[in-house]
Amino acid sequence: MESLISIGRKAKLVGNKLANYSTVKKNSALKYMAENLINEAEFILGENSVDIVKARKEEKEKAFLDRLMLDKKRIQKMAEGLLEVVKLPDPIGELEARIKRPNGLIIEKRTVPLGVIGIIYEARPNVTVDASALCFKAGNAVILRGGSGAINSNKALVKVLKQGLKKEGIPFEAIQLIEDTEKKTAVEFMKLREYINVLIPRGGESLINTVVENSLIPVIETGVGNCHIFVDETADLEMAKKIVINAKTNRPAVCNAAETLLIAERIAPTYLPVLLTELEESGVEIRGCNRVKKLFPKYKLATEEDWFTEYLDYIISVKIVKNIDEAITHINKYGTKHSEAIVTENQQNARRFSQEIDAAAVYINASTRFTDGFEFGMGAEIGISTQKLHARGPMGLKELTSYKYVIHGNGQIR
Amino acid sequence: MESLISIGRKAKLVGNKLANYSTVKKNSALKYMAENLINEAEFILGENSVDIVKARKEEKEKAFLDRLMLDKKRIQKMAEGLLEVVKLPDPIGELEARIKRPNGLIIEKRTVPLGVIGIIYEARPNVTVDASALCFKAGNAVILRGGSGAINSNKALVKVLKQGLKKEGIPFEAIQLIEDTEKKTAVEFMKLREYINVLIPRGGESLINTVVENSLIPVIETGVGNCHIFVDETADLEMAKKIVINAKTNRPAVCNAAETLLIAERIAPTYLPVLLTELEESGVEIRGCNRVKKLFPKYKLATEEDWFTEYLDYIISVKIVKNIDEAITHINKYGTKHSEAIVTENQQNARRFSQEIDAAAVYINASTRFTDGFEFGMGAEIGISTQKLHARGPMGLKELTSYKYVIHGNGQIR
Repeated sequence: MESLISIGRKAKLVGNKLANYSTVKKNSALKYMAENLINEAEFILGENSVDIVKARKEEKEKAFLDRLMLDKKRIQKMAEGLLEVVKLPDPIGELEARIKRPNGLIIEKRTVPLGVIGIIYEARPNVTVDASALCFKAGNAVILRGGSGAINSNKALVKVLKQGLKKEGIPFEAIQLIEDTEKKTAVEFMKLREYINVLIPRGGESLINTVVENSLIPVIETGVGNCHIFVDETADLEMAKKIVINAKTNRPAVCNAAETLLIAERIAPTYLPVLLTELEESGVEIRGCNRVKKLFPKYKLATEEDWFTEYLDYIISVKIVKNIDEAITHINKYGTKHSEAIVTENQQNARRFSQEIDAAAVYINASTRFTDGFEFGMGAEIGISTQKLHARGPMGLKELTSYKYVIHGNGQIR
Repeated sequence: MESLISIGRKAKLVGNKLANYSTVKKNSALKYMAENLINEAEFILGENSVDIVKARKEEKEKAFLDRLMLDKKRIQKMAEGLLEVVKLPDPIGELEARIKRPNGLIIEKRTVPLGVIGIIYEARPNVTVDASALCFKAGNAVILRGGSGAINSNKALVKVLKQGLKKEGIPFEAIQLIEDTEKKTAVEFMKLREYINVLIPRGGESLINTVVENSLIPVIETGVGNCHIFVDETADLEMAKKIVINAKTNRPAVCNAAETLLIAERIAPTYLPVLLTELEESGVEIRGCNRVKKLFPKYKLATEEDWFTEYLDYIISVKIVKNIDEAITHINKYGTKHSEAIVTENQQNARRFSQEIDAAAVYINASTRFTDGFEFGMGAEIGISTQKLHARGPMGLKELTSYKYVIHGNGQIR
């Protein structure tokens, strides 16, 4: 199998070239990739079924199988995703600023690709296609390291994508897959600081922690969302109910789903019965704080661990808070800086919440479920950053770029 | 001595508050700090002399002593630096974008502080003041970890700066110094991912590597500059000479000084004698490639290591290259992505150089010495980033910020 250093070196070399490819050329390659996905659907499904058989033998859980399994419809969706990326504006070469200095120097700030992006992810073949397309359109070489459970699917998909590169005469090494699925190889991959400019882990908390702890390459942390909804005493209660139900039950397994409901004590006794009943009817398990437990003894008591937990499931923890101060303190303590919402008709509370909550996205009177590249109008996303460095919140094409200063002079010296 | 976790926790708490302080309040504190520096000059110099005596006893080299030593003039300069930061626009709370989505959501993107910034640096007391001022103005809490050789100076300076905070009723913990100077404490500091949002090492290559290798906190690499000047065959030779001499000799110990001269083979035999003689007359040692050595046997032969070396001294390595392709390949191989210059009258070469060189700052017909926050019109800088993530090149106040999305709705759900 090819050595990681060889993979890294090739990516770096190609990365330097991709920066200067035209938008037309990149888009054309993406279109060929989309076509090839459809044309090679049988081949891809065949390879995917090898992974599926193995996963069944290993008695993987249902959610794992669901994420792994491909069918014609899902391949069609991947191809459509590629065509969506074609439509997005090319972020490279944009003139972000141009200043003339008193000494006559003209300083231009231009967007450039990051260079080589490493993606480490779980057994989700769709990430193989999405991530490749976004990195490529932003002029980056990409090195993929997907979960071992999807290795056959990933090999097939990358092979098909490379055919798209070939039609445009773009070196194959713009998209590379690490085929060695041993864990120690992944850890070694995280040390290739000389060749890789940024590493983006996509997956659960333990994957992200492994990457942060082992990587020498700069990392962008994504995706862990312990999101809250705070309903204050001035809230439009009908609106609050709709938002809470939506944020919890619309798609509980995603990172922008709500995990905890905070409610102002003044309205808790009258409003909670309505709201909690409705949540229960939607199949949601309630875990309450001491005060909730006193009002409704039938619910389980939430533990300290509950407040920290991203359930990703039909479970919600509920806490009665004295006021907005207690709500803000709770969220800044237990939240993961992803998405937080307040439902209120009080302008001052809305302003305080938006200023004092430390999160990528803060919502006033809307569901946390909107934290998403498509919903933000970016067209696509490679993940939701929960750190403050480089990019925060949904990361689209622009967030996969860096910049460079080009300075034009006529002999200036200091 | 206070535990690191206690320092981190306090910084995080105060960091959340600083984000919402008014510009007036922050500027007023900075002005008090400047006043206090002048008023307490005797105290600071007394503490500094303790460090100086120790350094002399340990027979530290001249450059070390020069960076460590304070006098009234240097303290005056520190105070002036603080007043410069007062004048800079406040980067916090700026509305970077505002979009209305078809569903009626209004998405605002606003600048916010990074939160808590850790600075790890060598025995340079001026960094204590500069870094504190910039981090503070951008609404960040700062934790300083300076070189052990300057610990008494740093303690004195931080004490004086804190008096400025006190006059405005700002918690002391906005600026904290780690007083424990053991190396293992610094390494432990780099693990405080829960409390610190970004770590900025300022110093030489070995310091930066130690931080990159040990840190769990996102790092911004700064300051290593193996900068090149390429003189092509169309260059205005008088201009080229001025630029090369300036970039090499104006201040050889700084990161934007030139370390290698590349020269097109067509002009080398006639032009090099003039240029190298002038460099020698400026006290610069020449180390040449094989071809230079053949033309001028008196010079030392440059080794492979030379091409990688940031001399920071009156030494230059000189290589004759065939053409711009060889120049670009050399720079992208040996450079540190800091500052690179071409001297040329050929527009196409200028464009290729600016596109294909992978560096924070690419100069056409100007000295590399301009890569600097002041020279770029940022007013001040905390360092020169040589990575592509988050910030590249000189980092001013804006580069010490992140952003947050604030989304206003009226009950939107998905």
